[in-house]
Amino acid sequence: MNPDLPSTTRNVFTPTVGIVGGGQLARMMVQAAGRLGVEVHVLARVTDESVRGIWPAVHDGDPADPSVLEEFSRRCDVLTFDHENVDPELVDALVRVGRVARPGASALRFCDKAAQRTALATLGFVVPPFALATTVAEAEAFARLHGGWPLVAKTPRGGYDGKGVRWVDGAEQALVALALAGGSPLLLEPALAIERELAVLVARRPDGGHVVYPIVETFQRDGICCSMVAPAEIEPALACEASSIAVAIADLVDMVGVLAVEFFVVDGALVVNELAPRPHNSGHFTIEGCVTSQFENHLRAVLDWPLGATTLVASAVATVNVLGTSDGADLLAGVPHALAIDDVHVHLYGKTARPGRKLGHVTALAADTATALERASRAAHALRRGAVRADDTRVVS
Amino acid sequence: MNPDLPSTTRNVFTPTVGIVGGGQLARMMVQAAGRLGVEVHVLARVTDESVRGIWPAVHDGDPADPSVLEEFSRRCDVLTFDHENVDPELVDALVRVGRVARPGASALRFCDKAAQRTALATLGFVVPPFALATTVAEAEAFARLHGGWPLVAKTPRGGYDGKGVRWVDGAEQALVALALAGGSPLLLEPALAIERELAVLVARRPDGGHVVYPIVETFQRDGICCSMVAPAEIEPALACEASSIAVAIADLVDMVGVLAVEFFVVDGALVVNELAPRPHNSGHFTIEGCVTSQFENHLRAVLDWPLGATTLVASAVATVNVLGTSDGADLLAGVPHALAIDDVHVHLYGKTARPGRKLGHVTALAADTATALERASRAAHALRRGAVRADDTRVVS
Repeated sequence: MNPDLPSTTRNVFTPTVGIVGGGQLARMMVQAAGRLGVEVHVLARVTDESVRGIWPAVHDGDPADPSVLEEFSRRCDVLTFDHENVDPELVDALVRVGRVARPGASALRFCDKAAQRTALATLGFVVPPFALATTVAEAEAFARLHGGWPLVAKTPRGGYDGKGVRWVDGAEQALVALALAGGSPLLLEPALAIERELAVLVARRPDGGHVVYPIVETFQRDGICCSMVAPAEIEPALACEASSIAVAIADLVDMVGVLAVEFFVVDGALVVNELAPRPHNSGHFTIEGCVTSQFENHLRAVLDWPLGATTLVASAVATVNVLGTSDGADLLAGVPHALAIDDVHVHLYGKTARPGRKLGHVTALAADTATALERASRAAHALRRGAVRADDTRVVS
Repeated sequence: MNPDLPSTTRNVFTPTVGIVGGGQLARMMVQAAGRLGVEVHVLARVTDESVRGIWPAVHDGDPADPSVLEEFSRRCDVLTFDHENVDPELVDALVRVGRVARPGASALRFCDKAAQRTALATLGFVVPPFALATTVAEAEAFARLHGGWPLVAKTPRGGYDGKGVRWVDGAEQALVALALAGGSPLLLEPALAIERELAVLVARRPDGGHVVYPIVETFQRDGICCSMVAPAEIEPALACEASSIAVAIADLVDMVGVLAVEFFVVDGALVVNELAPRPHNSGHFTIEGCVTSQFENHLRAVLDWPLGATTLVASAVATVNVLGTSDGADLLAGVPHALAIDDVHVHLYGKTARPGRKLGHVTALAADTATALERASRAAHALRRGAVRADDTRVVS
């Protein structure tokens, strides 16, 4: 990391960061900004609940509407993003008229899974075998080449939390998946024998100066990341290789801000799964687990400020996501139950409870990963167990 | 601490905390609440800047106006306070009509320095020699008894950051001090040979369950706390005694929330200086320095939720307050300079810069107190050095 200050920041005494999108990532960026005294504006629909409760400067508007985005960008010194579903061409157009967007279009463009996969393969990064299919025949041909059904089918854009990803177990299911993709090509992958899933977070400044977080191992259920531990218990050489690949990709897409690179470990080797040009669910452990959180470093990077240390503050950190329960019960009532467990940190995102919706997370620090994970899991369970349905009587103590 | 959950919280699934007052303590409570998903309302003048920028639910009103406070209390499940300048009788009246105030009137009443000092002395706590004077003759008599001038003269209510405290070097200055007190008695103390100043923070639930933070040593300049280190480098026996006294006082005033007790060390022994029934400047080190911050534990306590661990997460933590520079320059421009120093945490309160005004603080964690203090001081200095005056040209990078 290059600690030199860019000359331009010397006179920017009240930089305003505009966040496009209003989910929990925006919420946690806003929390980091509040501490640093940085002014933040958020462009979101008022129906996006995560920021509604914590920030006065929410501009109600659809970030996908070019005129709304243009108007919003006028109020901000630098634009950044809560999600990658922003048209890179729109961002490019804003940059051409002098606005500052970090990350820029080059990184956002890379979020199309099809383009990303093709580019990474072309550049020599190890990626899963893949094909882009628009017909059942193409899917069948790919299945024949790669050990048969099932295949994994991904929608190139707009997927998150397992949405846009499905298992396809034959021609009929392939037809359904193609129909759901609405004419866009599907990204197909074989069923890999995945040994581990890892993620690497890199925070990068405009000049390329960067910091890398300790590698985190993620655990999925039904395509949704449900828990993670850092540091990942892997060989130092593998960790070093993963970090290098992530930094190389950050350089390649000229990333500014936090970039998350997800890996599979297959046969002991790293395979690049996908990337996200923003703070990432796998990095929530950094809020209490590292000297500087991913959200603070994302802000520092987009403001071209010196980046903070990414060192762990405990031997092990675990985070467990908290999803809405099947009866849609409100988790807030569970908070005191979770807090009764020592040394856990509860984060709720202010979202209305719905089954399977990511409503918050719990982080625990401990001397070893097993203890940290056990404690965070127990707290997440206590949250859910303590939840009450919205039609329960409200009693004020 | 008693981890049992009160039966009443089981059905309170969206508790709303009302904070009376809108300074930086309210701001940091709001930040802690946002993470926990707790809804907060703030009663403040819109001219109170610390919360204006970070919270949508600021109710514009004068907390000292009984009807405003009454109206505000209707919207909240529990009232708490950013400052102690609230009339305890008003709070008592609200409690009589069923509102919940934490801390309650018993703790708030104790904030009158004259009443507090008298009560503590009566109960056998060691306090500085003192007198309440309304005439110069009384001041002269006190000076004769306690080694002559100068004396320290304190206004019993409303003082903070050195305001309301002055050195009095003779009869003439005593006359001025009495005139400024506007008829209220002045609390007089002799000039003590203070070896150290310490503070103990206790977080206490309604049932008396409590946690105590590691003892912090504070350093003052011109009556303002300018820096602090934790843990204080004192004998374990003294630390134990200070903790016990603080807990005893918390029990005595039936504190709910965070109580700060300030001590002098004189001739190696503890003297209780004063107390504040709220999160305290001396406890800002807990945000990054302890498992659970004083702000989160204050919220947990007033919500009657289990309290969090107060363990330090590093061997030593130091916090340095950042005051406005003599030219009233904006500190935000200094932030990148401060962030260029490793492992420091910068907090700005969103207040307009004015000379001597407390605008923020910097915390550093390290292996020893000297290193932590050196690093935090250097970062605070970098903040001030990098500050630019508001009339400088704004350049967007």
